[in-house]
Amino acid sequence: MGPEHLSSRARSAQSSAIRDLLRHARRPDVISLAGGIPDPALFPIAEMQAAFAATLAESGPDALQYGLTEGLTELRQWISARSEHRDGTPASPDRMVVTTGSQQGLDLLGRVLIDPGDAIVVEDPAYIGALQSLRGHEPTLVGIPLDADGMDTAELERRLEAGLRPVLCYLNPTFQNPTGATLSLERRQHLVGLARRFDFLILEDDPYGELRYDGQGLPSMASLDVAGDDGVVVRLRSLSKVLAPGLRVGWTVGPGWLIDALIIAKQAVDLHTSTLSQHVAYQVVAQTGFLANHVERLQASYRPRRDALLAGLEQNFGDRIQVNQPVGGMFVWGRFVDPVDTTDLLSVALDQGVAFVPGDAFAVETPARDQIRLSFATEAPDRLIEATSRLAAAVETASQ
Amino acid sequence: MGPEHLSSRARSAQSSAIRDLLRHARRPDVISLAGGIPDPALFPIAEMQAAFAATLAESGPDALQYGLTEGLTELRQWISARSEHRDGTPASPDRMVVTTGSQQGLDLLGRVLIDPGDAIVVEDPAYIGALQSLRGHEPTLVGIPLDADGMDTAELERRLEAGLRPVLCYLNPTFQNPTGATLSLERRQHLVGLARRFDFLILEDDPYGELRYDGQGLPSMASLDVAGDDGVVVRLRSLSKVLAPGLRVGWTVGPGWLIDALIIAKQAVDLHTSTLSQHVAYQVVAQTGFLANHVERLQASYRPRRDALLAGLEQNFGDRIQVNQPVGGMFVWGRFVDPVDTTDLLSVALDQGVAFVPGDAFAVETPARDQIRLSFATEAPDRLIEATSRLAAAVETASQ
Repeated sequence: MGPEHLSSRARSAQSSAIRDLLRHARRPDVISLAGGIPDPALFPIAEMQAAFAATLAESGPDALQYGLTEGLTELRQWISARSEHRDGTPASPDRMVVTTGSQQGLDLLGRVLIDPGDAIVVEDPAYIGALQSLRGHEPTLVGIPLDADGMDTAELERRLEAGLRPVLCYLNPTFQNPTGATLSLERRQHLVGLARRFDFLILEDDPYGELRYDGQGLPSMASLDVAGDDGVVVRLRSLSKVLAPGLRVGWTVGPGWLIDALIIAKQAVDLHTSTLSQHVAYQVVAQTGFLANHVERLQASYRPRRDALLAGLEQNFGDRIQVNQPVGGMFVWGRFVDPVDTTDLLSVALDQGVAFVPGDAFAVETPARDQIRLSFATEAPDRLIEATSRLAAAVETASQ
Repeated sequence: MGPEHLSSRARSAQSSAIRDLLRHARRPDVISLAGGIPDPALFPIAEMQAAFAATLAESGPDALQYGLTEGLTELRQWISARSEHRDGTPASPDRMVVTTGSQQGLDLLGRVLIDPGDAIVVEDPAYIGALQSLRGHEPTLVGIPLDADGMDTAELERRLEAGLRPVLCYLNPTFQNPTGATLSLERRQHLVGLARRFDFLILEDDPYGELRYDGQGLPSMASLDVAGDDGVVVRLRSLSKVLAPGLRVGWTVGPGWLIDALIIAKQAVDLHTSTLSQHVAYQVVAQTGFLANHVERLQASYRPRRDALLAGLEQNFGDRIQVNQPVGGMFVWGRFVDPVDTTDLLSVALDQGVAFVPGDAFAVETPARDQIRLSFATEAPDRLIEATSRLAAAVETASQ
C-alpha cells in the first residue's frame, strides 16, 4: 500500500514548495507579509461571547443539531436583506447556499460545472486557492492578463472570437488577490455582455469588497446581470474578512437551477456547514448597526497599514519597484525593475526576518518571477515599515 | 443558461424521491422513525456554554482565526490518546485529519482514491450518505450482502477469487446503518486478510461504536491491522453521535501517505474545519471523565427506546415482521413477511402520522422493497410504541 493507490487527480495535486517555505513565516522573528490573514486583534470577541450565550439561550438545541444543507434560514434571510440594501445586489434566500467558507462554494461550483478538459477563464495572476481548487477538476485554465483596471476583457473578447469556449470565468473583480486591482465599471459591463454572448457563467468571488479605504464602490457584477434564473453571474461571499475566518461561513448566490445542484452536491460533501458557526455568526451580524460599525473599524485599522507599507516601499526602494496603489483589500503587488527572482528571494528574506508570497505562485500562463505579493493586513504600521527595510536588505543580499 | 450547463457528474446526481417525501417527516403530527438524528434533549448545553467561555478566555483570537488544514493540534492529541486508551486503536496525531463531519472524510477519501470506473465494495444495503458520496466519483459499486454478523466476507472472497479487483471496501462494521448488524470478530480478521491479499483499502466508518447497549465491544478493524504506513484500514470517526452533529467535527485516521493526500485535498475544499467548532468540542471533551459519563447517559437513554420500539413491533406485528435485535446504534431493520412495498407504504404512513426510510433507499444490487429502517434515537419510548401502532394501521390500509 502506498501513494500508487491514489487517484490520478490526487497524484497530480502536489504540495507546493512555496507553501513548505512559508511554514517559516510563523517564526516569531519573522514579520509576515505573506498571508491574507485578518489581524486577530480586530475580532469582536466580546460580541461573539454574547452571541454564543444568546444562541444557546434562544436557539438551544437547534444550534447543535443537524441543519438544512442550504444553511440556516434566518442567516440566509439576513444576507438577502443586507445584500439588496447595501449594494443593490439581488440575493433571494432561495437562490443561496451557505458554505464552509467561500472556498467551499468554489469547490462545489467546480464539481457541478466542470468536466475534465473544459476551458476555464481566470485572471493571470490569480488567487492561489482558486487555482488549486479549479485544477482539482482537471480543466484547461486560460489566463487573461490584468492591469490596474482588472482583467483585460478586450483580450478575452479576442480569445473568444478566435474560438475559445469556456464554461466559466472565475475572477476577483474587487481588490483582487493578488494584485489589488479593481475591475472598472466599463469592463464589468463588457464581461457580463461577453458571458451572455458566448454562453458562459461568471464566478464573482468577492471576499474583500467591504474593505474599501478610498472613494466609492462600484456595482457588483451580479447587480449588472438580469435577476432570476436567466442570470449569468454567480456570487461568492464570506464572513472571513469582515468577521472571523475561523467560523468558516460563506455563501454562494446564483440562478436556481445551479443552487439546486450545489445543494445536492453539498449534501454528499459535508451535509451542511457547522450550525454552531452559522448561529453565532447570525447572532453577531443581525445586531442593528454592528456590521457597518465593525467594517468602519476594520477600514480605519487597515487604511494606515496600507499607507505604511506603501511608504516603506517608497522609502526603501524608490523607483526600483513598481507597485499598485490599492484602494481596498489586503494586498500590494510589486514588480522589481531590476531582475530579481522572487521565488529565490524568499529563502534569503526569511533569513532577514520577512516573509511574502512570490509572484510565480499566482501565475497561470505568464511567469511572474520578478513580482511579489505583500499583505498589509496582519501587522501594525511600524512593523510594516520595518518589514520593507528587511526586504530591501534581502534584495541586496540576493543581488550580490 | 440552465441545467444543460451542469457537469456530467452533477447531471447524474438526482434529488431523491424518498428525500422529498421525508420533508413531511418534520410535520408536528408525524412521529419520525426516519432520521438517524440524536435526541437534542441529550445535548450537553451547559457544558457547551462553559466550553465556549473557556475557549474565548483561554484561546481567544485563535478560535476565530484561520487554522491548520489537518485540524487543531490539541484536539488531534486528545483523539489520539483516547483512541489508544479506550479501544486499543493506534491513532497518531500526525496520521489524522479533522474533517467537517465524518461525511467529509468519506468525500475526501473518494477524491484521492477513486478514479471513474474503479470497483468499490460496499455492504448491501448500505448507508445512503456513503452511497451518494461514493457515486459522485463515478465508480462501479459492488454490493455484498450482510446478515446479523455483518458483511458476508466469504461471498466477498468468492468475488475476489473470481477476479473482482476493488480499490477499496467501505463498511460500517459496528451497529451498521441501516441494518444495525455488527461484523463478527472472525469476519473482521477475514476482511483485513482479504485486503492485504488483494491489495485494497478498508474504510471503517464507525460513528455509532460508543452507543452499545448490551455486551462487550469488539476490536476495531484498525486495531486488527498493522500500525504505521503499511496499514490497510482507514478509520472514520465523528463527534456527531456522542456530542452534537451541528459542530460538524469528525476525523479520519490512516496511513501517512494517504493522510498527506487528504490534507492537500481538504485545503482546496474548505481550507479547514471551523476552528470555533473544534475549540468548543475540544474544551468539552477534554474535561476529565466528561465523555465517558456522557456516553453512559446516552446509553441509558437510548437503550429503553430500542426496547420500546422492539416491544411495539412485537405487539403490533407479531410474526408479520422479522426484525434484527441490535445491541447498539440507532436502527432496527425489519422485513415484512407478507409482501409490502415499503416505498409505496411511506406516503400512506405519513398520512397515519409516522415516518421511516424504505429499504430500497439503501439497496445497492439487491432490491430491499419489503424492508424498512426504523430509528429509535429521536423519540421517547411511549411515542415509539404509538409509532408502531400507526405503522400497523398504515400497513393495513396499504394492503386493502
